[in-house]
Amino acid sequence: MKAFNDLADFTTEELEALLELAGRLDTHPEPEALKGKVLSLLFLSPSLRTLASFQAAMTRLGGGSFVISPDMSIHGLETRPGIVMDGSAAEHIREAVPVIASYGDAIGIRAFAERKNLESDLAETEFSALTSLIDTPYINMESAMGHPCQNLADWKTLDDLGIPANGGKFVLSWAYHPKALPLAVPASTLYTAARRGMDVTVLRPEGFELPEPLMQKARGAAESAGGSVTETNQRTKAMEGAHVIYAKSWSSTKHYGDRLGDQALRNELVDWCVDEPWFDNAREDCRFMHCLPVRRGVVVAERVLDGPRSVVIQEARNRMLAQMAVLHQMLGSGS
Amino acid sequence: MKAFNDLADFTTEELEALLELAGRLDTHPEPEALKGKVLSLLFLSPSLRTLASFQAAMTRLGGGSFVISPDMSIHGLETRPGIVMDGSAAEHIREAVPVIASYGDAIGIRAFAERKNLESDLAETEFSALTSLIDTPYINMESAMGHPCQNLADWKTLDDLGIPANGGKFVLSWAYHPKALPLAVPASTLYTAARRGMDVTVLRPEGFELPEPLMQKARGAAESAGGSVTETNQRTKAMEGAHVIYAKSWSSTKHYGDRLGDQALRNELVDWCVDEPWFDNAREDCRFMHCLPVRRGVVVAERVLDGPRSVVIQEARNRMLAQMAVLHQMLGSGS
Amino acid sequence: MKAFNDLADFTTEELEALLELAGRLDTHPEPEALKGKVLSLLFLSPSLRTLASFQAAMTRLGGGSFVISPDMSIHGLETRPGIVMDGSAAEHIREAVPVIASYGDAIGIRAFAERKNLESDLAETEFSALTSLIDTPYINMESAMGHPCQNLADWKTLDDLGIPANGGKFVLSWAYHPKALPLAVPASTLYTAARRGMDVTVLRPEGFELPEPLMQKARGAAESAGGSVTETNQRTKAMEGAHVIYAKSWSSTKHYGDRLGDQALRNELVDWCVDEPWFDNAREDCRFMHCLPVRRGVVVAERVLDGPRSVVIQEARNRMLAQMAVLHQMLGSGS
Repeated sequence: MKAFNDLADFTTEELEALLELAGRLDTHPEPEALKGKVLSLLFLSPSLRTLASFQAAMTRLGGGSFVISPDMSIHGLETRPGIVMDGSAAEHIREAVPVIASYGDAIGIRAFAERKNLESDLAETEFSALTSLIDTPYINMESAMGHPCQNLADWKTLDDLGIPANGGKFVLSWAYHPKALPLAVPASTLYTAARRGMDVTVLRPEGFELPEPLMQKARGAAESAGGSVTETNQRTKAMEGAHVIYAKSWSSTKHYGDRLGDQALRNELVDWCVDEPWFDNAREDCRFMHCLPVRRGVVVAERVLDGPRSVVIQEARNRMLAQMAVLHQMLGSGS
Repeated sequence: MKAFNDLADFTTEELEALLELAGRLDTHPEPEALKGKVLSLLFLSPSLRTLASFQAAMTRLGGGSFVISPDMSIHGLETRPGIVMDGSAAEHIREAVPVIASYGDAIGIRAFAERKNLESDLAETEFSALTSLIDTPYINMESAMGHPCQNLADWKTLDDLGIPANGGKFVLSWAYHPKALPLAVPASTLYTAARRGMDVTVLRPEGFELPEPLMQKARGAAESAGGSVTETNQRTKAMEGAHVIYAKSWSSTKHYGDRLGDQALRNELVDWCVDEPWFDNAREDCRFMHCLPVRRGVVVAERVLDGPRSVVIQEARNRMLAQMAVLHQMLGSGS
Repeated sequence: MKAFNDLADFTTEELEALLELAGRLDTHPEPEALKGKVLSLLFLSPSLRTLASFQAAMTRLGGGSFVISPDMSIHGLETRPGIVMDGSAAEHIREAVPVIASYGDAIGIRAFAERKNLESDLAETEFSALTSLIDTPYINMESAMGHPCQNLADWKTLDDLGIPANGGKFVLSWAYHPKALPLAVPASTLYTAARRGMDVTVLRPEGFELPEPLMQKARGAAESAGGSVTETNQRTKAMEGAHVIYAKSWSSTKHYGDRLGDQALRNELVDWCVDEPWFDNAREDCRFMHCLPVRRGVVVAERVLDGPRSVVIQEARNRMLAQMAVLHQMLGSGS
């Protein structure tokens, strides 16, 4: 495995093998599998779960990792191409990224969307620019539109919970948040649920439609896998018979990169906070999923987050297991 | 061992076993004892020795660790219960702590006292709120009133120096410091010396008496162990025949949480800097102990700190060994 | 090996053994060589390559490391001797350094030049003050005048490229940079190239002569090794027949510690940016070396840095291998 960037790059058999391996490594540790192997971790955007779970994953497999993040006392990283570096930044990513990669057997990279231009972000311009600098196997730790480690962890969580693939009803719901957030999680979660063969409903207010290319990609995956993709702004309709609601805030695609326009739309939507009444016509055991971090009382009511529906801690722990499977495949002796 | 929180939770035999193991691991390394095991380290308060010594301890036992601290580029951690998170913090400890714990086989947590309300701090309200969120074995890396890793290291240091348990005279002395500092070290050191069976004198100016519940707990431990606990503001009387003086500044209990009141009292006490004349009627080989960090020329004179009485570096190194023993018991195959 | 501080402390046979070992560890990993061993990493100055490559090196050899740097939420480190610590710093290096060292089997220390007084920096006053506090084996991770890990990596790079030792022509060139930078890299690189037996030319503008003691040390090394050391401000003369140009900016020795004086001199020298015309009378395959970080379009033109002459990434990767060799010799079972 040269890259773990997008679940769409893998066959269903490959994904099933990763999920099976993730479960096996939980019950049957392999503390020598990656003995002496190094994972470079480059964070150009903040992190908690990813930072912690990748370090833990490498230790559990007998290897190790190191972290470079821009809040460290390094010299400032320039990202603009062709620039004369006479300002404050003393190092360019064109050197930093290959160097950091050269110390590892693989590299994980996180770089959130710039959110200036939707086409550019959909094309993963920035993340591709980073990975084009290296030959090392790499892992997408969240890019403009992708978060495959979260996706694999969520897939495992759905499996763990026994939620059916075909026939399972998955609601991906927008939620209120005071700031415009990236599309990476909704975009890649939509694809993942569709790829699993579920009946997916995107529930979002007007102005927060997901970009058409993302919807198309998901519809294609659903067709092949025996599922479906629909969208609506009607909560009651969306939640009917749902097995799971996956809440996430994201920025307005209508006002993409326009903070004030997004804010004006968003300010009217504070009632998009997932609460118990949302579940009135869902399945009684309907679950609540979220990738975290989550704002209590804003994205979701405390009683939901602290109640039996919530599986957010389980999802987060599955991050580590999913990543162990990816690392094992990428760096293990059989790789 | 499900928790290492307070020496009072352990029988004397259990403590002796930990001390013996700490010594043994120094001379007989076990670099495979915790192969593939992970320690999560969560710092909600600053650290140097604890940060370094726990990472070193896990490596020496063949495992690993990861660190989360609030100065990282994470999303800001909210601690208040029941809050609507529409401010700057993007994540609540109710998610962050269980998630961080879920990546480790054990978790170390540091959270200093809030120092607003003495009863609340004596009850360890904040630390208990954190540990109540998890099922994972945990280690107290310093709470409002506890610092058991320091205590075990200090006990080992006293043993290493051949200072007698029964009959050994231990002076816990307040010292000047420009700021009001937490009670965790004096509180738990008092208990530790008493528990070891020593004759303990608390030497402190008026207004800096340790809270009565802490004195009572120490007196109870002394009684069982054949030692004694007294307090005084008379330096000469306190130091008579002393084997060791353990210096530490702490906040006024009379003005607890009242910075200006504490400051007014403290400003008159700059002569509480441990210096050579303090030792005039102590044992000739009387030792100087301090948990570090220590302010030179403020808490203790340079000639004492740099002289043969000082065992502060030895104490600090024993932190690592004591913690290796705890981790070995908590996570080792025999655990 | 008790210290890795200066290539001048080692015989040629010892250096050759280190270089051979660095190459061998690249092709023949030894993931158990330093099992359970700990390297303490103390950064009093910023770092990226050193930070990453030492952590990776220890993992590859089966050990581990921990990092202490002043941007962490530690208590502020006081460095001045004999001071009464009533200001903001809560800990003195006289405690911090021995404590941090005590957790490791070896310690790496980085402390850049103070650049107030040239004699003091040439005498390594500050770095010696740090290492005098410890008995632990130590590694110089860059001091006022030394950067031996970079030197060993560069030597390996020259070997890897097949650039001849005797008869190889090495140009150490000053380059423009908006700020006055330390002398550590030019000083120790000059010695290294001379020690390797190459014909070394120092190319620098007036006012940027390297201090005479450094020139003398290099001339002595060149004499023993069959090479030579000259200096000039004539680019064409310097580059004639060159196998390699090693670019680096450094502060004016004439205005050492005088920021405005240095700046006035430096402002006239923006054309000292290594570009393709520099290579007109060099060997056709003349290489470009730099220790990184490097400012694109300022120190070196993009077309050189991105072209086939540049070996900067290879140099950086050799940092890890060189350090693995040093650590193996210092901490391995045969040590």
